[in-house]
Amino acid sequence: MPTTNRTVHLKSTPRGIPVPDDFEIRTTGLEDPADGQVLIRNIYMSVDPYMRGRMREAWRPGDALSGNAIGKIIATNNDDYAVGDYVLNPAGWSEYLISDGRGIRNVDPELVPLSTYLGVMGMPGLTGYGGLLVTGEFKDGETVFVSAASGAVGSVVGQIARIKGGRAIGSAGSDEKVAQLIEEFGFDHAFNYRTADPLTELRKGAPEGLDVYFENVGGPQLEAALFHMRPYGRIPVCGMIAHYNDKVGAITPGPTNLTQIIYKFVSLRGFVVSAFEPDRPRFLQDMSGWINSGEMKYHETVFDGIENAVDAFIGLFSGNNNGKMLVRLSDE
Amino acid sequence: MPTTNRTVHLKSTPRGIPVPDDFEIRTTGLEDPADGQVLIRNIYMSVDPYMRGRMREAWRPGDALSGNAIGKIIATNNDDYAVGDYVLNPAGWSEYLISDGRGIRNVDPELVPLSTYLGVMGMPGLTGYGGLLVTGEFKDGETVFVSAASGAVGSVVGQIARIKGGRAIGSAGSDEKVAQLIEEFGFDHAFNYRTADPLTELRKGAPEGLDVYFENVGGPQLEAALFHMRPYGRIPVCGMIAHYNDKVGAITPGPTNLTQIIYKFVSLRGFVVSAFEPDRPRFLQDMSGWINSGEMKYHETVFDGIENAVDAFIGLFSGNNNGKMLVRLSDE
Repeated sequence: MPTTNRTVHLKSTPRGIPVPDDFEIRTTGLEDPADGQVLIRNIYMSVDPYMRGRMREAWRPGDALSGNAIGKIIATNNDDYAVGDYVLNPAGWSEYLISDGRGIRNVDPELVPLSTYLGVMGMPGLTGYGGLLVTGEFKDGETVFVSAASGAVGSVVGQIARIKGGRAIGSAGSDEKVAQLIEEFGFDHAFNYRTADPLTELRKGAPEGLDVYFENVGGPQLEAALFHMRPYGRIPVCGMIAHYNDKVGAITPGPTNLTQIIYKFVSLRGFVVSAFEPDRPRFLQDMSGWINSGEMKYHETVFDGIENAVDAFIGLFSGNNNGKMLVRLSDE
Repeated sequence: MPTTNRTVHLKSTPRGIPVPDDFEIRTTGLEDPADGQVLIRNIYMSVDPYMRGRMREAWRPGDALSGNAIGKIIATNNDDYAVGDYVLNPAGWSEYLISDGRGIRNVDPELVPLSTYLGVMGMPGLTGYGGLLVTGEFKDGETVFVSAASGAVGSVVGQIARIKGGRAIGSAGSDEKVAQLIEEFGFDHAFNYRTADPLTELRKGAPEGLDVYFENVGGPQLEAALFHMRPYGRIPVCGMIAHYNDKVGAITPGPTNLTQIIYKFVSLRGFVVSAFEPDRPRFLQDMSGWINSGEMKYHETVFDGIENAVDAFIGLFSGNNNGKMLVRLSDE
């Protein structure tokens, strides 16, 4: 049995894009699980853009970070869990977790690959699924534009739209990712937002306008989408990564053309994945089916070891990842 | 019978705030009504902020302007209408109208004062009613903030919220209007947006946050409201008058804090009054009841004569009106 645990803590509140010195790894002792408890060894942990917001609004310097992880039960004093069970748990950024079972959930390693429970089968997948189909009210055959389309959420959004007989336009930050959107994920049109004009590209890719803009980014892409929305269009707002690292005095401007929503009856709707908890069973069934039929493709970028978790997280903001960004903390 | 008609035409597309020279009055001959037609003499015409948008997007130089008016039938060759009937018609900006009956509707001059069919009983009233209760999903007892609150739409919004047991906060552009909001319209809190800080005022007037922000203005008031929305808050977007007169190179910036909507599940929803056509019967019943019980107060600013219609319209953008801005074209 292991006797020590390593956890990443916030050392200082990041200003702008986080730097390695904003974080530190602390080592603590690890007890055996008491009555009713289990000991979980984490295998994969997730790093996600939403964590940047928590570093401003929830976590204070000194706090341990947390997030989703997939781990294996290696000791148990709880009849509900057996050694060898794989569980989704909230102890990301940590190698081990002692748990009384609250907030953990068994996952089936036979159904789909284990790591996908942090990606297409997990929070990012449900975010894309619910954001498009529930908040975005996407109907079969409609047209969606998704920004940050090669990311863990965006690639799911575009592929679901295609599976539902619709049209998908995506943007990404490099020509390689743009090529991947078309060739691997089957988007109808894609462009590099760093070099192309978004409105020109939207007119090219969706000549009849957009029914849904799945918003991950903010800035000029939101402005272009507002101009190009169809009447009664919907803009589910999942994130605005362009704004996450704003500093005092260097604020990314908001869209100047919000008036576009009035005469077009367009809505912008903020949401967080927790809204879709009631949709989870339908989601897991649909998504595992699409993964196993080959209709749903996904990519992962995997960093190794808790020493590299901070680099993985910071990499999210420079576009270093291709698909879901994960950190492997131990072997399956 | 009159033999000539005067109509206001657009002479040039306004740049920024319209000026008198952007318009001209043209005089044309007036025939007697043919078979199936009626001749209407207009009594009141409406000028409204939405017309500024039409001068950019619909009307070209030379076009006759139009809008809602209340008139009296003075000659008829149509069995559906009698001389002496009062009708709502789309021939505002014009002294007379020959009509075959399409697009006109009888109004009851005994039920409420005639001019209110262009105000609280008409388009602005239905805009406030539907925008608050339908698009804004306002529930009894909730808290609403409405900008441009002393206007024809805004004053209806605040009063309905109060009638429904809720709390109303309003902003206006002068201390006189602010006093009127409190003393006459019964708002719980009001402030002068030209001299007070909106966020400070919202915190004062609605310590527990806003369920609904009824958006008429845009700019810093939208930004303040976004910071102060409660979870699941709704922002029906009726107008953004601060942006209507934007010129190329002098665009009013958008809100820098749209990310606020994500974690609070807030929605912004554009709408136009036409969406509430199905709600009109219920609206007319509710509103006439509130007018006659004295629960619904209203003010009108009346200019006299078609020669002054342009001044009335331009006055909307400098806040010259107190309540609904009307032009009287003839006696009742």
